[in-house]
Amino acid sequence: MTVLRGNAIIGQSGGPTAVINASAAGVIIEALKHSEHIPKVFGAAHGIRGILDEVFYDMSEEDPRELELMKTTPSSSLGSVRYKLADPDEDDSDYRRLLEVFRKYDIRYFFYNGGNDSMDTCSKVSKFVRDAGYDMRVMGVPKTIDNDLAGTDHCPGFASAAKYIATSTMEIFQDANVYNTGQITVLEVMGRNAGWLTAATVLAAARGAGPDLIYLPEVEFCLEQLVEDVKRIYQEKGNVIVAVSEGVRTADGRYIPELVGTVSTDAFGHKQLGGAAQVLADHLAKETGAKVRGIEFSLLQRCAAHIASKSDVEEAYECGAEAVRQALAGQTDYMIGMKRVSNVPYEIEYILVPLVDVANHEKKVPREWINAEGNFVKSEYIDYCLPLIAETSDVPQEDGLPRFCRLKKVQARP
Amino acid sequence: MTVLRGNAIIGQSGGPTAVINASAAGVIIEALKHSEHIPKVFGAAHGIRGILDEVFYDMSEEDPRELELMKTTPSSSLGSVRYKLADPDEDDSDYRRLLEVFRKYDIRYFFYNGGNDSMDTCSKVSKFVRDAGYDMRVMGVPKTIDNDLAGTDHCPGFASAAKYIATSTMEIFQDANVYNTGQITVLEVMGRNAGWLTAATVLAAARGAGPDLIYLPEVEFCLEQLVEDVKRIYQEKGNVIVAVSEGVRTADGRYIPELVGTVSTDAFGHKQLGGAAQVLADHLAKETGAKVRGIEFSLLQRCAAHIASKSDVEEAYECGAEAVRQALAGQTDYMIGMKRVSNVPYEIEYILVPLVDVANHEKKVPREWINAEGNFVKSEYIDYCLPLIAETSDVPQEDGLPRFCRLKKVQARP
Repeated sequence: MTVLRGNAIIGQSGGPTAVINASAAGVIIEALKHSEHIPKVFGAAHGIRGILDEVFYDMSEEDPRELELMKTTPSSSLGSVRYKLADPDEDDSDYRRLLEVFRKYDIRYFFYNGGNDSMDTCSKVSKFVRDAGYDMRVMGVPKTIDNDLAGTDHCPGFASAAKYIATSTMEIFQDANVYNTGQITVLEVMGRNAGWLTAATVLAAARGAGPDLIYLPEVEFCLEQLVEDVKRIYQEKGNVIVAVSEGVRTADGRYIPELVGTVSTDAFGHKQLGGAAQVLADHLAKETGAKVRGIEFSLLQRCAAHIASKSDVEEAYECGAEAVRQALAGQTDYMIGMKRVSNVPYEIEYILVPLVDVANHEKKVPREWINAEGNFVKSEYIDYCLPLIAETSDVPQEDGLPRFCRLKKVQARP
Repeated sequence: MTVLRGNAIIGQSGGPTAVINASAAGVIIEALKHSEHIPKVFGAAHGIRGILDEVFYDMSEEDPRELELMKTTPSSSLGSVRYKLADPDEDDSDYRRLLEVFRKYDIRYFFYNGGNDSMDTCSKVSKFVRDAGYDMRVMGVPKTIDNDLAGTDHCPGFASAAKYIATSTMEIFQDANVYNTGQITVLEVMGRNAGWLTAATVLAAARGAGPDLIYLPEVEFCLEQLVEDVKRIYQEKGNVIVAVSEGVRTADGRYIPELVGTVSTDAFGHKQLGGAAQVLADHLAKETGAKVRGIEFSLLQRCAAHIASKSDVEEAYECGAEAVRQALAGQTDYMIGMKRVSNVPYEIEYILVPLVDVANHEKKVPREWINAEGNFVKSEYIDYCLPLIAETSDVPQEDGLPRFCRLKKVQARP
């Protein structure tokens, strides 16, 4: 087999995670090893936007030690983007522009690191350039703390966020129970449609140091039921911890802030979530008269590299490296996925998942992993999640603080 | 010298820290070694409240391994309290009750672990029992993330919170700069009157990954000036991170939520929604039209044992143990303090600080460590703080999550 010869580009897209840079490092470091087939490796500034704007960096100019440090640097060092390509049947101008840039820089390997939307982007780009007769390998590298990608056992980024959330919940539990006066604590966790991350608070509960109640978006939300649940436990114990996903909504589709407050929409018409903890805390204070504290894990949960899962960092890197190896072997239009071969001891293998299978699906927490009342998570989830967070990643330190990568970002020329 | 013979009690008071249990462990483990002079060591449930209510635990009943685990378990495992004793000249009923309990249980060593208020409590209790002719050693063990106790170079609990805040700020920086659309991020840090913790965000800035602006309670706050500062930097850079202490207030004593409350077209539709970060974020969004995110470190900053400073844990323990050794040597009415003997290499020695010197003072960040404009922190602070966070404490793990202590809490009988 003749190996396709040409340059490679990697783009990062969507919300950051603690390990998205590890995946980019996997692509970059692996691709740089194959200079006989891939003369140049580019990093796109702000994902697809950087390609459209012809702003990308020559990764061979970077110090290899800094590329190593990308593995333990959270968020997207190349810059991320939320730009959405149009449907090519309606408006193909972006696609034509991409093709132009691909040709100009002889880009034959396209790696895109992101969630569902990014896999959809990959798939559309691939189809367009193929129809135009341009030979290019397109591989998706999975990324999302939400853990909602189809075709893979779990997603890089999820385990680190879960480890942070479970650990922080245990610590908050110690704090929230410290006074002899009652307290209700509301924890707000990210997750618009899938409750994988909020469910991670059950790992703390299983150690006797977690929430009493957990509400996921997989179950229709009822504010009155939550108030009733909280009141009952508050009466029994005097202390209640409630974990709630930012994405829970009622049968008619309203989010918590809409139920007792107001919600704003962004430029794309997406409702701006977040703030549920405080809104709910205010509501519960009024309903119960108790002292209530709302805590939002906010950005911290998706960028806490200091307590990232070791296997998550390694797998994120390998997903990137494997994408390169598979593309060199002639594969295209796949996302790298992970299949769990064994739970104890934990073992996975890397698989190829067709991009089209990922693009239009959202994997949710199975309903049978949630209790009948819809206010707690069952042991199936614990068995699934615990192996993913077993060890902590080691982050190189400098005077007691993390040493993150410093990229030179030398702009590439054709 | 004859060593006073009798039982010991330790109480924990005020807001939790990552290492307050380490101090309690220091007292308990050290006191248990001296059974020839201290037959029993009691742990008061919820500080002074537990003594008044005669609810305390016989610490010799605990598994020594669990007492070891107290060192790395955040918050107050014995329970804390915010109960304030009356002025004995006005109402001495609590003091008479305490004396009664001390006599009943032959308590001759009283250790109290807390901040300014706790040292005041110690001082008053000591005077009352002495006036009543009851021989008892009273020693304060310092604790506060606020770092505002007089007579000591720094306070156990501060360094761990500072390390958490600096690290998290660096991580948030990676995340907050990831899109090519501008963003303003507001970080809210604890500290009502002293800005030691908020100032720790400058450690992140010194690594090129921190706030552009830092506002401490030591400087009179001016909302208009902050808005102007933010607008200027936003124009220059497109991304701004602002760190603000929850305690900043204007010349006439108003806190941030009160300020925007009076401007009052209520950006969020609720009054008292969130803390300073959210209120300020809403205000800045209105003033700049930028995307603004408010992040409150909340309880996480005071209970994040998973990233506690190693020296903080050790010093907290030693402060407790030293209090016992000094009390056995006949000292009373002191708080254990720390004196920095050398900065490089970092070295401290333990000293005795008269309780009365601590009780009525609050140590603030020196004005000359803050820039003239009052919106940033100078290198003197970095030199002071960096040695305190040099290493990370090792927290024993169980399946990837912290293994916190589990106390039996066997109630003591007279």
